[in-house]
Amino acid sequence: MNIGIIGLGLIGGSMAIDLRRRGFADRIVGMDADKVNAAAALKIGLVDEVVSEDECVEKSDIIIVAVPVNVAVKVVCRVLDRFQKEGWTDKIVMDVCSTKEQIAQATMYHACRKQYVATHPMAGTEYSGPWAAMPNLFDSKVCIIADQQESSPKALATVEKLYDALNMRVGFMSVSAHDVHTAYVSHLSHVVSFALANTVLDKEKDEKHIFDLASSGFSSTARLAKSNADMWTPIFIQNKDNIVRVTDAFIQSVQELRDAIDNMDETAIRAFIDEANRIKRIIK
Amino acid sequence: MNIGIIGLGLIGGSMAIDLRRRGFADRIVGMDADKVNAAAALKIGLVDEVVSEDECVEKSDIIIVAVPVNVAVKVVCRVLDRFQKEGWTDKIVMDVCSTKEQIAQATMYHACRKQYVATHPMAGTEYSGPWAAMPNLFDSKVCIIADQQESSPKALATVEKLYDALNMRVGFMSVSAHDVHTAYVSHLSHVVSFALANTVLDKEKDEKHIFDLASSGFSSTARLAKSNADMWTPIFIQNKDNIVRVTDAFIQSVQELRDAIDNMDETAIRAFIDEANRIKRIIK
Repeated sequence: MNIGIIGLGLIGGSMAIDLRRRGFADRIVGMDADKVNAAAALKIGLVDEVVSEDECVEKSDIIIVAVPVNVAVKVVCRVLDRFQKEGWTDKIVMDVCSTKEQIAQATMYHACRKQYVATHPMAGTEYSGPWAAMPNLFDSKVCIIADQQESSPKALATVEKLYDALNMRVGFMSVSAHDVHTAYVSHLSHVVSFALANTVLDKEKDEKHIFDLASSGFSSTARLAKSNADMWTPIFIQNKDNIVRVTDAFIQSVQELRDAIDNMDETAIRAFIDEANRIKRIIK
Repeated sequence: MNIGIIGLGLIGGSMAIDLRRRGFADRIVGMDADKVNAAAALKIGLVDEVVSEDECVEKSDIIIVAVPVNVAVKVVCRVLDRFQKEGWTDKIVMDVCSTKEQIAQATMYHACRKQYVATHPMAGTEYSGPWAAMPNLFDSKVCIIADQQESSPKALATVEKLYDALNMRVGFMSVSAHDVHTAYVSHLSHVVSFALANTVLDKEKDEKHIFDLASSGFSSTARLAKSNADMWTPIFIQNKDNIVRVTDAFIQSVQELRDAIDNMDETAIRAFIDEANRIKRIIK
């Protein structure tokens, strides 16, 4: 299978590594809007060749769009337009974005909609760029395929095989359910980490030595605050309604614990913590 | 050196392991209010003998108080009373608590104050009990000694040697500075994680499958929500003033990002994230 990757960062690059190692990809071409990234991806060996977007679509059976979600909306549509224009009915395009509603709307009435598969592999790190690519990134993680009924059975089966090669467990969900759920389990965590980092950094302006105390507890809670603005600004904007609603629920929850502490209400604090401990059922 | 440990949980137990392995402790006795924990600590080999609090003080050169901070206030005072009553001027008592103000106030005018060293080894995991004890827990982490001028030079030097054996870097701070700073870098992270866990768990009541999506981002941000109520309820109450102030600053920060998202203000969102990215200077 010939694979084309548009966007050679953490996700695109890590896919390249495992799709090649595991024999799913015979040949991988790719492109990145950032020339330094593209050159690095070639040198590292993520791709066999750096090409233009046009060549990438031409030379590939599956085109993986792994760019920030605001750009992905346009790229996926351009690729589908090309499929239509050239009469390519066997090629497939898939994205890997963390919000799905806007791409769904943009592609909804496209003549080649069935050749597009909306996916979201739930894996990543707080790092970015081709240097952040790593083997086994996706192993045992979950990949959501959204509105699968809109894709052709053949395109869907091929993409499922691709994720099978990445050792992912595939789940299905509507586009709108996906965007609500990622707001809870991914986007909110990022809002929280960014705000936590800024709260502590504000304090540091007065007191330089505060960071002698940066214990492992803080490091883990603030880890996502290293995530980059190019990726996260469009996610926040595209999933605005869900994220605002979920963030309001979170602020209310913080306020509840804050008030219990302020009132020195031992029973309420203890109940709040006991309830939160139930998270052990879900995360290791 | 004979070591006595009151409270055989994660911190007390992990100290026992490394103080013994590294030859600092010749013999370790200990006690735990929970009989199951005490028996386990003996079986695991954390202590050579389980004793009463009285025996623990009698048989040890250094008494380590590693119990929740509300209990520690009483235990440290009881141990100092015993030093005074028996005329033991060479023995040392130290605590390991995450808030220091209340123990400082309770011991301030004690005749044996100089034999008490207020310490806070900034290390831990979200697990508790003797089974959570592990080797190398403290390696390369920071330990704060608070109000060191209130301890005798000899007691201080001995406790510094103990932390040296645990491979910790020792820093000095006033009690009140310590409590402000831990509010920022440790206590706030716990408030945030507990609230994040409860926000997501509330949602789960309606939609069971949300946890298919629990990506690694969420796991890391909510990790501390597994921390137990026995330890954290008294910390929140004892450091109430600092924690409430810091939490209010955090809520304001979340609100700022939430409003920028709601207004789809790309410039403001990007600036907020860029600012938060500076956390890279501090955490790996």
